[in-house]
Parts: sequence; structure tokens; C-alpha cells
Amino acid sequence: MKKNCLVAQSGGPTAAINASLAGVINGVIASEKYDRIYGAIHGISGVFEKNFMDLTDLINEHGQQIDLLSTTPAMFLGSCRFKMPTIEEDKEVYEILFKTLEEMNIGAFFYIGGNDSMDTVDKLSRYAAEFKSDILFAGVPKTIDNDLINTDHTPGFGSAAKYIATTMLEIAHDTYIYDLSCVTIVEIMGRNAGWLTAAAALARNTYNPTPQLIYLPEVPFSKEQFLEDIKQQLKISKNIVVAVSEGIRDKDGVYISAQNATLDKFGHPQLSGVGKTLENYVKNELGIKVRSIELNIIQRCGGHLASRTDLDEAVKLGEFAVRFTEEGNTGFMTALKRKSTIPYMYDIEMAPLAEIANQEKKVPREWINEAGNNVKQEVIDYMRPLIQGEVSISYRDGLPVYIPVPHLNTGAKVE
Amino acid sequence: MKKNCLVAQSGGPTAAINASLAGVINGVIASEKYDRIYGAIHGISGVFEKNFMDLTDLINEHGQQIDLLSTTPAMFLGSCRFKMPTIEEDKEVYEILFKTLEEMNIGAFFYIGGNDSMDTVDKLSRYAAEFKSDILFAGVPKTIDNDLINTDHTPGFGSAAKYIATTMLEIAHDTYIYDLSCVTIVEIMGRNAGWLTAAAALARNTYNPTPQLIYLPEVPFSKEQFLEDIKQQLKISKNIVVAVSEGIRDKDGVYISAQNATLDKFGHPQLSGVGKTLENYVKNELGIKVRSIELNIIQRCGGHLASRTDLDEAVKLGEFAVRFTEEGNTGFMTALKRKSTIPYMYDIEMAPLAEIANQEKKVPREWINEAGNNVKQEVIDYMRPLIQGEVSISYRDGLPVYIPVPHLNTGAKVE
Repeated sequence: MKKNCLVAQSGGPTAAINASLAGVINGVIASEKYDRIYGAIHGISGVFEKNFMDLTDLINEHGQQIDLLSTTPAMFLGSCRFKMPTIEEDKEVYEILFKTLEEMNIGAFFYIGGNDSMDTVDKLSRYAAEFKSDILFAGVPKTIDNDLINTDHTPGFGSAAKYIATTMLEIAHDTYIYDLSCVTIVEIMGRNAGWLTAAAALARNTYNPTPQLIYLPEVPFSKEQFLEDIKQQLKISKNIVVAVSEGIRDKDGVYISAQNATLDKFGHPQLSGVGKTLENYVKNELGIKVRSIELNIIQRCGGHLASRTDLDEAVKLGEFAVRFTEEGNTGFMTALKRKSTIPYMYDIEMAPLAEIANQEKKVPREWINEAGNNVKQEVIDYMRPLIQGEVSISYRDGLPVYIPVPHLNTGAKVE
Repeated sequence: MKKNCLVAQSGGPTAAINASLAGVINGVIASEKYDRIYGAIHGISGVFEKNFMDLTDLINEHGQQIDLLSTTPAMFLGSCRFKMPTIEEDKEVYEILFKTLEEMNIGAFFYIGGNDSMDTVDKLSRYAAEFKSDILFAGVPKTIDNDLINTDHTPGFGSAAKYIATTMLEIAHDTYIYDLSCVTIVEIMGRNAGWLTAAAALARNTYNPTPQLIYLPEVPFSKEQFLEDIKQQLKISKNIVVAVSEGIRDKDGVYISAQNATLDKFGHPQLSGVGKTLENYVKNELGIKVRSIELNIIQRCGGHLASRTDLDEAVKLGEFAVRFTEEGNTGFMTALKRKSTIPYMYDIEMAPLAEIANQEKKVPREWINEAGNNVKQEVIDYMRPLIQGEVSISYRDGLPVYIPVPHLNTGAKVE
């Protein structure tokens, strides 16, 4: 009797995580070894709650849905923030989970996510090994932050980078228009790793030198140096654009965004972002026109501007996860191994899980200039292939067509 | 001897204002009456500074540039914030300006902009009439705010509306993923007119009921009612998205964003936006997960997501401005007159300038629901045609190709 498969998604949304889901579904449907593919709603929590949907039927009934799924941003199956306990901490959690998987005749479980999800896959595969379960566990990477080790980069990053670079270019055009000195500060996601903020450098071209200044969490931030950097740049151009990671910290490790905490008239502390903090530095200390822009969650869910390369890789990482389990492998994450940058070529391989959960891949210090206010050509060379190609999405009534998600918490009435 | 033409842009950027410029250039090049077309850099200020560029040559030398120009966001010729004095206030300003126009053998001047620019066109045409100049003056409308009277809508609005609706839909997908109560507040531009914020309603579809709440400046805002609205919506769905205009005011006309002013530790007043203010209301009074997103300037410069309908109309409004002057007309603004919504059809006509500068077209109260927290179907019907169609822009190295603007304040070295 053929086994079934189960897939779930976890962590924060990206524009590519549904492409990996499409890849897993493709892989299972193409497989002679597997029968049905189920999705758990809201990540691993959905397994505990036995909240499943049959993706085989969804796809068989609506063949075109698989393409729609792969270009729809965020998470078709929903997400959760569930930290898997260790076996020592709570063995019962594992027993409940494996019992459910066995009842569903699951042969392989695919978890698409970031560090925490890979930790879950690692723990489940170790439990299976220890207690002689033959259920296989595979991780499929995703995170816009690009901070997973053991893979050249992560699906979701390329699309976010393309969104950020495009938006930075359009912001540049917007900021050129007046003949007066102006500083524009753009706050970009990234608590500990500066990859996304570094992607702002891709917006530079023959006529656009912005952003002239880039500050990443990898280098301690100094307010005095920042103001000095602005003054220096204003000698070259009236129009300064700054890209800054939300997670920059001072030399003592204190978040810069925390240094601007204020109280409202009722005494409630009001946290504002790092962009606002730097805006206030410039306004209060230099007295020139300044504004800040926070790209916010739009940078991770801009499906209409996804990178074709990113989505293609995401699909393949999902397909290969299935293929590797067909060969009997377990306890791995599918990963991208770059073979060449020009022309861009890569292999897909299995990466060990153990260290992934506890390590973050950061922008190498040698890819950042000595002053810590810009990135070097290595960053551009590394990232440029990842934003290549556009996604052809359908538009209906002027808006992108995405796959409906009425099974999630949309508030829509499902008939 | 054939006369030349002059064109300039003013006010804030849009995704369509360069399409109107392309239309004016097209019109002049196609005209048998006119010779060359010059552009003034940085609006009317460029005329005083004699800062011109010859657009005839630009286009003749680079034929494909005209398409690139029409899809490039923001302002190719730059902008200014110059308030034209009345003739009584400063006649010399007019004398200087007309002398320059005569030296350049200008037959017609085209000013692409919003209320203030139309005021300038009005004043210049009145001066010409009074002092027997035969130079013709025409206005071409643009503003994302859609607040100009005497035209069905304004170029730039449709593209901004398409950007806003698309982004709201993608934010909806992003917010669905967790199975917990969450409020997302999206701050949209519009100081006095709620058109852009109302466009958020276009994001609703068969599975997406968000944004459930929409607050426009046309209706006085009440904090108590807002919190009550949120509580009511939370009974229907866990996932609430709110669209709010930056310009909402309370019943006494005080900006809501001004009610959250805080002081930093140095005593500097810190202004935050209305989104942040509402976020704090929800956090402090309801204690549920809440975040705010400010679409900021990206909503007006997102050229990659421009509306085809919008750009086509912008081009035509520029072309017709030239044609109307060829017939000897002066002191008008080209305007869109809707003939039919389904199918969408319009005429281009000349609108009188006098009132445009001093009036703002707002969302009719009867297009807003009685509770003042949502828009009616009339808004959807009015806007839907304006976001139809996509713009096919080229991508190079993963990013949109726009027309270079090294003559502006880009900081790029011009060879």
C-alpha cells in the first residue's frame, strides 16, 4: 500500500513559500511511491489539531491551481509560532504527533520554513530514529532574511531583494525632483542579518548613485559617524538616500530603534522604528529636509514583483525534497549549492539540519566597506542572479489573481 | 516662422506625469504648427533660471525614449514649489517670464500639475490677455489625490489606486497566516480628500473581505467609535485590516495624527503618523496584536505597477493640450469627461481654470456609509475602470528600465 505525504508551512510569509509548496505537491503527484498529499493548516499546530486539507484533490480538480499557488504570496496553509519541545522536555507531544501521522499513513513529512522549522524537522527525525518509526522528515528552506546556513541562499530572499531594489529605484526617481537638499531614510527588514538591506545597493545604476549609505546590523552603528557620513555625502549630492536595517545596534549592542523611545501624553511608551530614529537625528542635529520610509511587511508579500529565479528555485527545492525521501533519506534540508555565478548555475543537495536552527548566516564583514556605511561589489555579484526574471501573473479587474485562501482566517464565508 | 513650445512639470510625483509629458512631446512633434519643444527644469522656476533642455532632440535622437519616458515614474523635468504672485503683487515677475518666452519664440506653454500649477496657468493666461501677448497657456492635470474639480478624475490617481489595491490584497494574504486576533492599520495618502484611501476597497474579492474598515477625511473621526468598530469586526473575523487617510480629523477639525505627539528624551516633539496613532489606540485600549503600515511615497512612484488606462489617458491629455492650442485656445486645462462607466468611455475637453486652484473635489458623503467607516458600491464602480490594464515595462538585470534623469539632482556624474 502506498504511503501518503504531509506538508506544512511555518514562520513568516514570503513571496516564494507557496512555490515550495507547489514543488512538494508536484513531487508527490509525480511520485510512484506516494499516494495522497495532505496539508496541515497552521503549521505543526495543524497536526496536533488534526486540521488538514487534501491537496491532491485540490490540484486534481483544478489543474491550473498549481501555477496560481506558486505565484501567490504568503502562506496558503497558514503558519504558526510553535516551538517543538525536546523529547526530554515533553515526550507525549511526540507520541501524539506520530500517532496522528501513522493514522494518516504518512510516509514523509515536509516542513517549509526557517530556522525554527528546521529545528522541528531535526527533532522529529531524531525521534523517529530513536523509536524506530519509518516516517521520513524533510525540511524545505524559506526566509526572506537569507540567514540560513548550509545553503547558498534561501527562497523568498530573491523576491524580497527584487522588491526592495525596485522600490529603492522608484524612490530615487521620486526624490530627484526638487532642487534642494534632502535626506531619505529607508528602513528595511533584518534583525540580525543585513542581506535585505544590502539588496538596496542593486538599485544603483549609471544615473542613480542612491542609496549612497547602507547600514547593516553586522557593523556597530554610531550616531556621530552617521551624521558625519550624511554631511560628507551632501558635499557630493543634494539628494541622499540611506538604506538601514531595522536591527542596527550601537557598539554596546543596544538597538538604535530603542534609543528613541518616547512617552505619549498618557505615559505610554511609544516605540518607533529605526528609520524614524535616524530621521530625528538628521532633523534635530542637521536641520535639513528629511523623511523616513519603512518598507514594512510589503517587502515580503509583494507577489506581483516576485523573482522568477526565486520562485523556480523554490519549486525545485520542494520537488527535490520529495525525490530525496523517495530514495529513503530523512532528517535533511534541501539546499542550494552555487556552482557558478556567471553563468549562474547551482545544484540542489541535502544539507544537515543540526546546526541550522542555532546559527545565522550574516553578511561577511569583508563584503562591507571598512567604514561600515556601504557594501562592496561582492554583495552585488552574489545577489544579482537571484533577482533575475519576472513572474507572469494574471490580472483580473486590474488586480493580481492569487489563489483564494478561505480555509484560513480570512473572515470570508466559505460555501 | 514656426513657434516653439515649452513644457514643465510641478507639484508632487505620480506614476503618470511623465506620460502626460510624453503626450505633449508627441503632440508638438506631430504638429505642423510648432517647431521645437523645450522643457523647463524644475517647473516654472526653470523659466526664471533659464534652465531648459531641448526635448525635440532628445526624442529625435532616441526614438524609443518616448515610451520609456511615459512609463517612468516621478518627474523627468523635476518639480518646484513656487507660488506665482498676482500681477498686482509683482508685475516684474511676469515681465521677466514673458521676455524669456518671447526670446525663445514660444507659442504655447504647457504646465503639467495640480491645483497650484493650474493657478499659475490661469494667471499667465490672464496676463497675456491683458498685455496682448499671443502666447497660449494650457494646463494638463495630474495628481494622485484626484482632488481637482472639472475633470472626472486626474492622471496619476488610477496608478496610485492600482498600487494601493494590489498592496492591500497582498497585505491581506500576509495577515491571514496566523490563527489569532490581529489588527493591521494601513495609512494612505490624502490630507483632505479620501480618494486614495477609498481605493483600498478595490482589494476586496470573493475570499478577501479586507479592509473591513475605511476612514476618510470627509467624515469626522471618533476614537471611541473606531475602537467600537474594531470590537464589532472582531466578532466576525480574527483578522481585521483598516485603511485610513493620513488626513482624518476629529469633530473639531484637529488632525488625529497631531493627537499622538510625543517628546523624546531631549524634549524634541516627535510627530508620528495617523497609522501609528491608531495602532497605539488599539494596543493601549484593546490590548490585542496590532501593527501599522504607512504606504508612504511608494504609492505615488510605483511605476512598475502603473495602470495602463491611467497612462493612456495621461498621454492623451498631453496630446490634446497641444491640439487645443493649435486651434488657438488658451487658459484652459485638458479634462476627462466620463460618458459611460460600463463600457468605460470618455471624452477629452477643455475645462475652465478659474475655480480649479481654490476648490478640492472630495469623496461625496453619499458614497460613504452612514457610520462613516466604509465606502459604498458607487466608489468601486467609479474607480474600477481607472485601474484596468498593466504596463509592460522592460526589465534589465532584474530591475525596471526607466529613463535616466542625470540632468536632475541625482548626484550622478554627467559626461
